[in-house]
Amino acid sequence: MAAEKRSFLVLHGPNLNLLGSREKEIYGDLTLGQIDELIAREAERLGVEVACRQSNSESALLDYIHAAPGDYSGIIINPGAFTHYSIALRDALAGVGLPAVEVHLSNIHAREEFRRTSVIAPVVRGQICGFGARGYLLALQALAETGPE
Amino acid sequence: MAAEKRSFLVLHGPNLNLLGSREKEIYGDLTLGQIDELIAREAERLGVEVACRQSNSESALLDYIHAAPGDYSGIIINPGAFTHYSIALRDALAGVGLPAVEVHLSNIHAREEFRRTSVIAPVVRGQICGFGARGYLLALQALAETGPE
Amino acid sequence: MAAEKRSFLVLHGPNLNLLGSREKEIYGDLTLGQIDELIAREAERLGVEVACRQSNSESALLDYIHAAPGDYSGIIINPGAFTHYSIALRDALAGVGLPAVEVHLSNIHAREEFRRTSVIAPVVRGQICGFGARGYLLALQALAETGPE
Amino acid sequence: MAAEKRSFLVLHGPNLNLLGSREKEIYGDLTLGQIDELIAREAERLGVEVACRQSNSESALLDYIHAAPGDYSGIIINPGAFTHYSIALRDALAGVGLPAVEVHLSNIHAREEFRRTSVIAPVVRGQICGFGARGYLLALQALAETGPE
Amino acid sequence: MAAEKRSFLVLHGPNLNLLGSREKEIYGDLTLGQIDELIAREAERLGVEVACRQSNSESALLDYIHAAPGDYSGIIINPGAFTHYSIALRDALAGVGLPAVEVHLSNIHAREEFRRTSVIAPVVRGQICGFGARGYLLALQALAETGPE
Amino acid sequence: MAAEKRSFLVLHGPNLNLLGSREKEIYGDLTLGQIDELIAREAERLGVEVACRQSNSESALLDYIHAAPGDYSGIIINPGAFTHYSIALRDALAGVGLPAVEVHLSNIHAREEFRRTSVIAPVVRGQICGFGARGYLLALQALAETGPE
Amino acid sequence: MAAEKRSFLVLHGPNLNLLGSREKEIYGDLTLGQIDELIAREAERLGVEVACRQSNSESALLDYIHAAPGDYSGIIINPGAFTHYSIALRDALAGVGLPAVEVHLSNIHAREEFRRTSVIAPVVRGQICGFGARGYLLALQALAETGPE
Amino acid sequence: MAAEKRSFLVLHGPNLNLLGSREKEIYGDLTLGQIDELIAREAERLGVEVACRQSNSESALLDYIHAAPGDYSGIIINPGAFTHYSIALRDALAGVGLPAVEVHLSNIHAREEFRRTSVIAPVVRGQICGFGARGYLLALQALAETGPE
Amino acid sequence: MAAEKRSFLVLHGPNLNLLGSREKEIYGDLTLGQIDELIAREAERLGVEVACRQSNSESALLDYIHAAPGDYSGIIINPGAFTHYSIALRDALAGVGLPAVEVHLSNIHAREEFRRTSVIAPVVRGQICGFGARGYLLALQALAETGPE
Amino acid sequence: MAAEKRSFLVLHGPNLNLLGSREKEIYGDLTLGQIDELIAREAERLGVEVACRQSNSESALLDYIHAAPGDYSGIIINPGAFTHYSIALRDALAGVGLPAVEVHLSNIHAREEFRRTSVIAPVVRGQICGFGARGYLLALQALAETGPE
Amino acid sequence: MAAEKRSFLVLHGPNLNLLGSREKEIYGDLTLGQIDELIAREAERLGVEVACRQSNSESALLDYIHAAPGDYSGIIINPGAFTHYSIALRDALAGVGLPAVEVHLSNIHAREEFRRTSVIAPVVRGQICGFGARGYLLALQALAETGPE
Amino acid sequence: MAAEKRSFLVLHGPNLNLLGSREKEIYGDLTLGQIDELIAREAERLGVEVACRQSNSESALLDYIHAAPGDYSGIIINPGAFTHYSIALRDALAGVGLPAVEVHLSNIHAREEFRRTSVIAPVVRGQICGFGARGYLLALQALAETGPE
Repeated sequence: MAAEKRSFLVLHGPNLNLLGSREKEIYGDLTLGQIDELIAREAERLGVEVACRQSNSESALLDYIHAAPGDYSGIIINPGAFTHYSIALRDALAGVGLPAVEVHLSNIHAREEFRRTSVIAPVVRGQICGFGARGYLLALQALAETGPE
Repeated sequence: MAAEKRSFLVLHGPNLNLLGSREKEIYGDLTLGQIDELIAREAERLGVEVACRQSNSESALLDYIHAAPGDYSGIIINPGAFTHYSIALRDALAGVGLPAVEVHLSNIHAREEFRRTSVIAPVVRGQICGFGARGYLLALQALAETGPE
Repeated sequence: MAAEKRSFLVLHGPNLNLLGSREKEIYGDLTLGQIDELIAREAERLGVEVACRQSNSESALLDYIHAAPGDYSGIIINPGAFTHYSIALRDALAGVGLPAVEVHLSNIHAREEFRRTSVIAPVVRGQICGFGARGYLLALQALAETGPE
Repeated sequence: MAAEKRSFLVLHGPNLNLLGSREKEIYGDLTLGQIDELIAREAERLGVEVACRQSNSESALLDYIHAAPGDYSGIIINPGAFTHYSIALRDALAGVGLPAVEVHLSNIHAREEFRRTSVIAPVVRGQICGFGARGYLLALQALAETGPE
Repeated sequence: MAAEKRSFLVLHGPNLNLLGSREKEIYGDLTLGQIDELIAREAERLGVEVACRQSNSESALLDYIHAAPGDYSGIIINPGAFTHYSIALRDALAGVGLPAVEVHLSNIHAREEFRRTSVIAPVVRGQICGFGARGYLLALQALAETGPE
Repeated sequence: MAAEKRSFLVLHGPNLNLLGSREKEIYGDLTLGQIDELIAREAERLGVEVACRQSNSESALLDYIHAAPGDYSGIIINPGAFTHYSIALRDALAGVGLPAVEVHLSNIHAREEFRRTSVIAPVVRGQICGFGARGYLLALQALAETGPE
Repeated sequence: MAAEKRSFLVLHGPNLNLLGSREKEIYGDLTLGQIDELIAREAERLGVEVACRQSNSESALLDYIHAAPGDYSGIIINPGAFTHYSIALRDALAGVGLPAVEVHLSNIHAREEFRRTSVIAPVVRGQICGFGARGYLLALQALAETGPE
Repeated sequence: MAAEKRSFLVLHGPNLNLLGSREKEIYGDLTLGQIDELIAREAERLGVEVACRQSNSESALLDYIHAAPGDYSGIIINPGAFTHYSIALRDALAGVGLPAVEVHLSNIHAREEFRRTSVIAPVVRGQICGFGARGYLLALQALAETGPE
Repeated sequence: MAAEKRSFLVLHGPNLNLLGSREKEIYGDLTLGQIDELIAREAERLGVEVACRQSNSESALLDYIHAAPGDYSGIIINPGAFTHYSIALRDALAGVGLPAVEVHLSNIHAREEFRRTSVIAPVVRGQICGFGARGYLLALQALAETGPE
Repeated sequence: MAAEKRSFLVLHGPNLNLLGSREKEIYGDLTLGQIDELIAREAERLGVEVACRQSNSESALLDYIHAAPGDYSGIIINPGAFTHYSIALRDALAGVGLPAVEVHLSNIHAREEFRRTSVIAPVVRGQICGFGARGYLLALQALAETGPE
Repeated sequence: MAAEKRSFLVLHGPNLNLLGSREKEIYGDLTLGQIDELIAREAERLGVEVACRQSNSESALLDYIHAAPGDYSGIIINPGAFTHYSIALRDALAGVGLPAVEVHLSNIHAREEFRRTSVIAPVVRGQICGFGARGYLLALQALAETGPE
Repeated sequence: MAAEKRSFLVLHGPNLNLLGSREKEIYGDLTLGQIDELIAREAERLGVEVACRQSNSESALLDYIHAAPGDYSGIIINPGAFTHYSIALRDALAGVGLPAVEVHLSNIHAREEFRRTSVIAPVVRGQICGFGARGYLLALQALAETGPE
C-alpha cells in the first residue's frame, strides 16, 4: 500500500442525488455531480485516489462498505437519513475496520432534535458537519494525511 | 398543468402486498389489487389519473418519490412499517416538495404504543387513518380537490 | 334505522367559534358557520342528515355525546385543545359506543410536540387531520358509507 | 357538630351518569341512581346523612366542593376522568380542607397506564378502588367512623 | 384607541374565589374582593380602566377571552390550576392576539414539580409570580406602560 | 364452600412488626397485635374466619400465598415495602388466583414519589390506602360481601 | 405436511456475510458458510430440511418471509442490526404467521444498551442469544420438535 | 474435570413450584417435577449430570450459587420474577464465575413491558426464552457442548 | 434599617454587557447603561437606593451576593445563561437569605425548551420575565414595597 | 448508655461472604473474616464494641436491624446489591431510628449506571464508598465520635 | 516521595466560605477556618502535610488541581454546587491523575433530587458525605493510609 | 476587511493547557504550544492571521468572544468540558454573530454518553471532532475559504 497511491471511497446516502434541487436553503446549490468533481479535484491535489458512490439503498451501501477493504484505505460517508437509524451501516463500518469519517452538509445540531443523534458516529474516527460540500474535502484531507492505523 | 388531467401517485409500503391474507382482523379482507381497483375507480370519478405502486424496498419507494415531480401532482403514501423509522422517506417527501397525504388502513392510535409516532407525518399535508381501503379514496379526494400550492 | 335517513352529529370543540378570525395561516379563512354549511351540503349530497354543535365547554360536549345514541348513528368530533387532555371526552365516546371520527383542521403532527398526542384517538374509528374544512367532509363520507357496526 | 347528625357529600364526576349502560364489564350493572340508593341506605345504617351529586362539569364540581364546608363534615369523590388531569379539583379539595376520600369503581391499576396516576390522591385522606359501588360504602364508613380532625 | 382610556381585563381562574380562607400560608390573607379593589386603585393611578372577573369554569374563561378584543387592550390572567393543563386557554389567548400577562400569587417554582410548567406561558407576553396580590399590580403597569403592538 | 364459614388470610409484609413503635406520625399508634385483634373482631361481626400472618421474608409470604387456595377464599395483603418491587409477590397472587385486596396504612400517594407505584396492584381486585388499621376492616368487608368469583 | 419432511428457512440478516472476518472476539471464527454447514448437518440429524439465506437487504428478507408459507414450516432468523429497528421485518413475521425463532450469536444483553431491545422479539415464539453458531442449532431443534401449531 | 462426568446445576426461582397449576396458558401444563425429569433424561442423553433445585427464596438461590463452583461446571437458571430486580442474583452469578444460562418458559418479550428487562442477562453466557420446558434442555445442551472456559 | 434609605443590589449576569448590540429582536435596543439608568431613576422615584453590577463571571456574581447582606436589603438578579445551570448561584442566594427577585428580559417560556427551567427560581421570592428592561423596575417595586421579612 | 461502652452493629449484605475470592479487581483481596478483624481492631482502638453480621437474606438483615435498638447505638451497613432495590431495608433503618452509615467497598459511581442509585442513602446519616475495607473503619469512627442524637 | 512527609491538597468549592453563617441546620456551625484547623490537626496526627484552599471560582479550582501534581500526593475536594455540573473539574481531576476523594458536609442523598448526582464522583477514588467537617478528616485518613498507586 | 488579511481567533477551553501530559490515549501527545504552532503555520499557508488563546475560565472565554468582532472574522473554539453545560458560551457566540466552528480533539461520540451533547453546536456554523490537532487546521480552512456572510 506504500508505493502506490492510496485510494478512498466516498459514500453518499439516501436522497443526496436530489442535491441542487432540494431544499437549497439547507443543503446548498451544488448538484451531487459538482460535489463529486470538487472531491476529485481535492484528491488530485492531495495525491490520492477517490471513488464516489451514491445510493438510496441501505443494502447497496452495505455492499460498498463490505467490498471496500480490498480497494480502499478509508471511507468518507454521508449517511443522510440513515445517520439516525441504520445500525446496519454502523455494524458494517465497525466490521470492515477501515478508518472512516462521517460528513454532513448541514449542521445537524441546528435542526430537528432527532437529527442530533448519529448511530454511526461512535464507530467512525471523526465527524464533520455544517460546511456543505467543503466538508467532504476536509474529511478527505483528514484521512489522506493520516497514515494507516 | 391546467388543461390535462392531473395525475397522482399512490405508494404502498412494505408488507402491504400481503393484504387480504394477513391479519384480516386488523387490515381487512381486500387484497391490494382490489384496493388499487377501488382507487382507480375513484380517480375516474374525480376526473384525475392515478398510478399505484407497492414495494417492500425503502430505496424503491425513494426512487418513486424522487421521480414523481415530473409526472404527478401529488403523492398518497401508506408507508406501512416505514412510518415509524424511515427518516429517508420523510426527507424524500420533503425534498421533492409535492403535496402528500399519509394513509393508514388501521387506526394506528389504537394499537401498540410505537405505532402512534410517525416520522413522516410532520412533512405531509395531512394524515388519514382507521378507515381501511376507504382511506385512500378520501386522500385522493383531498388531493384532487386542492389546486396546486 | 334502515328506511329513514341516517343522521350524524358534528361536534366542534373549544375556540373553534373563533375560526375565520384567529390565526388564519394555521386554521384557514372560513368561519365556523361557513364550514357547517359545507358540511350540510355534503350531507345532502350523501343523503344523510347532520347536526353541528360547537361548544367551549367540556361538559356541554359530554352532554351532546351522552345524548347522541338516540338521535345519531355516528359522531364527528374536532376536540380542539381538548384533544390533548380531556380524558373525559375519551371516556364519553368510548361509553356511548357510537362510531366516531376525530378531525383536525391543521396537521397536528407539524406543530408543537404536545399537539401530536391525542388522548381521544385510541377510542375513535379513525382520525383525519391537515385538510382544513374538507376534513369534516371526508369524515362524513367515511361514516356515511359504513353500515352500522 | 356533636349533637346533630354528621353529613357527608358524595360527588360523582364526568360520565358517571352513564353507569348501568356504559361498558358494564368494567363498571358494573348498577345505575347511578341505584348506587346513590345504596349509599343512602348505608348512611342510614351508620347514622349519618349523605347528599349525592353528579356532574360532568369540572366547575360544577368545584362549586360543590367550595360550598361543602358549611354543610358537610367530609367528601367522597369519584372524580372519573378528572382523576388524571383536574388539578383544579385537587386544589379545591386541598383548599376547603375537609377530609376527603377518593373512590374508583374499577381497579385503575389494572387498566391503561395513564389511569394509574391520580392528581387528586395526594390531597385526600385515602383512596379506594376496584370494589364497584361497594367502594362508596366503604369510603362512607371510613369517614363516618373518624372523628373530625 | 388613543383619546379614550385604555381598558384591561383581569381574569382569575379556578379556586381563586377561595382566597383569604384557603391555605393562607401559600396564597396570603387577602380576599379576592380586596385584591380586585387594589387592582382598581392601581388602574386609577395609572389612568386606565380595568374589569375583574373570576370563574371556576374553563369555558367561562374562554368566553371572556373571546369577547375581550372589542373591549380591552390587554389581558391579565391568573389561570390558577388551569395553568398546568388548559391548552384551551392557551389557544384562546393565542387566538385573540391581545397582549397578555400571566400572574401567579405564589412562586410556582418553589412548590410541587408539576406547578413549574405552564402550558400558557409560551403564548403570553410575560409572566410574574411570587409577589402575592402585588403581582397583578405589576402586570397592570407592564401592560399599561406599553403602547399597543 | 357454602355451608361452612368462609375464611380469609391477612398478610402483613416487612417491617409491619414494628408498628406502634415506628414512625407513628405516618403509621399510627396501634401495634400489629392490636390491629390483628381489630381484624378478628370485624371477622366475627361479618361471620367469617380470618388468619393473620406477618413476615419480613418475601419467600415466607410467597409460601403463605401458595398454600392459601386450600384454606382460604381470599387474601388481604399489606405488602409493605415489597409493594414497590416484589414482582414475585405479584406473580404468586396472580398464580393462585384467589381474590385479593391490597391495603396500605398510609396514603401512599401523599409520600415519596416511588411509593405511588405498586407492582402488585394490577393483579389484585382492589386497593385501599390511607385509613390506618381501618383499611384492613374495609378490605375484609369487601371480600366477605362478595361471593366467590 | 405430515408424510414428507418438514422444512425450515434460516435467514441471516445484514453484515452476517462478514462472519469469520469481522470482530471475531464478539462473533466467533466461523464463516457463514461453515455455520450453514453446521445447520445443514443438524437438520439431517433431526430429519428435517433446511434452507439458509443471507441478505443485507431488508426488502430481500421481507420477500423471503413472504414466500415462506408455501415452502417452510417455520423460520429461524438472525435479524442482525435490523433487530433494533426493522418494524417491517416484525410485521412480515407477524403477517405470515409461521412459527419463528430469533437467534443472536452474541449475548445482546452484555453489549451496548441499544442492542438489548428487539422490535422483532414480541412476534416470534422465542429468542436464543449468546451461544454463537450453536444458537441456530438449538433454534432448529426447538422448531423441529414442535408440531405445527 | 476431564475424566469424570461434568455436572450442572439447574435453579428454578420463585413461583415455579406452582407450575402445572398456575396460568397454564402462559406457562404450560407440565409440573416442575415433570420438567425436572425431562432435564434429567436429557442430561443422561448428553452424558452429564444434573441437579435441580427450586426455591422461592432469593437467599437460598444465592446460597446454591455460592456453593456451586465446587460441584458444578455450569448453572442453568430460570430466575422467575427475580429476573427483573434481583441484582443480588446477578452479583452472585458474576461472582462465582461459572458459565450460566438464563432460561424463561414464556417469551418474556411478548408480555408486560417490565418483563422485557433482565438484570441478570448481562452476566450470563446466553439467554433462551419462549420454548417452555424445552428451553432447559436447549440450555443444558449449550452448556454441555462447551468445554470449560 | 428603618430611618435610612433601603438599598438594593441589581446583578446582571453573563452576556448582558452585550445588550443593545446583540440579538435585538429578542433582547431589545437598550444598552445595559441605559437600563441601569432607568433602574436608578425608578429607585429615586421609590425612595430607595440601588447599585447595579454586571459580570460575566460566576464567581464574581457569587462574591457580590456573599457581600450583599451588610449593604443591601434585597437582590434583583438577571442570571442570564447561568439561570439554567449555576447551582452555585442558587446556593449563594439561599445562603445569604436576602429576599431576591429573578428577572429575565425575554419570555423564557417562548424560546428554546431548555430556557424554561431555572435552577435559581426555587430559592427566590418571585420571578418576572418577558417585559424587557421594565422587568427590573417591576422587580424593584416588588422589593421596595415589601418590608423586610 | 453513658458509663458503659457504646456498641455498634456492622451488617454485610448479600454476596459479601464471597469476598476475597470474587472479582478481586473490584472488591479487593481481603476475606470477610479479615475485614471483620480489622473492624474489631479499630473498635478496640476507639474504645467501642462492635458486632459483625453477614447475611444473604433480606429478611435476616431486617431482623438484625429490628433487634438493634436494644443492643446497639448505631448501624454500619454495606447493603451490597440490596442498595439498589431493597426499600424494605430502607424502611427498617428509618423505622428503628438509630444513626446508620452506608458503606461500599468499591466506588459505586465509577461502575454500571444502576449502581449509582441507593434507595437506602436518603435515610442514613452518611455514605462512604470507594475505600475498600477501610470504609468500614472510617464509618465506625464517624459513628463512634458522634454522641447519641 | 518516600523520605519526606506526604502532602495533600484540600479544596473547598463555591459558597463554602459562607460556612458557619449559612443554613446551619444543613451545613453545621463551624466556620471554614475552624474546619481547616481541624484538618490541619488531623494531618499532624497522621504525620502528613495539608494545604487548604477555598474558591468560588471554577477556574481557580482548575488551576489548583493543575498545579497539584508537583506538590501533593492527593486531593480532597468538596466541590460544593460544582458537584452537579462542573465537568471541567471532573476532567481536571481525571487529567492530573492524583488520587482524589470527594467530600460533602451534608448527606446529598437526603436533599433535593438534583443533589444526588455528582459528575465528579466517577473519576475520584471514593466519596464521603453526611458527616459534616468530620468527612474531611476521614478523607484525609483514607488518602494518608494508602500508599501511592 | 477586503484588502487586509483576515484574522481568526482560536479559543481553547478548560484543561486544554494540560495537553501532552494528560490522558494521551484520548487527546494525543502534542502540547498546546505545539498545536498552536501548527495552527499558525496553517494560517500562514492560507494567508490569514490567527490568534490563539487558552483559558480555564468561562468568563475569560466570554470576554474573548465579546471582544472578537472588532478584530476577527471568525472564531474556532474547542470549548472542552464547557461544551456540555456552558450556555453562557453559547449565548456569547450567538450574540456576537461571527461565524464560528466547534472543534474537539477526540471523537466525542465514542466516549461517555454525556459528551455527545453540545449546548454550543446549535449556534455555530459547523462541528469537527475526532481528528486531534488536525481538527483545528480543518476548521481554519473551513473559515478561511468562506467569505464573510
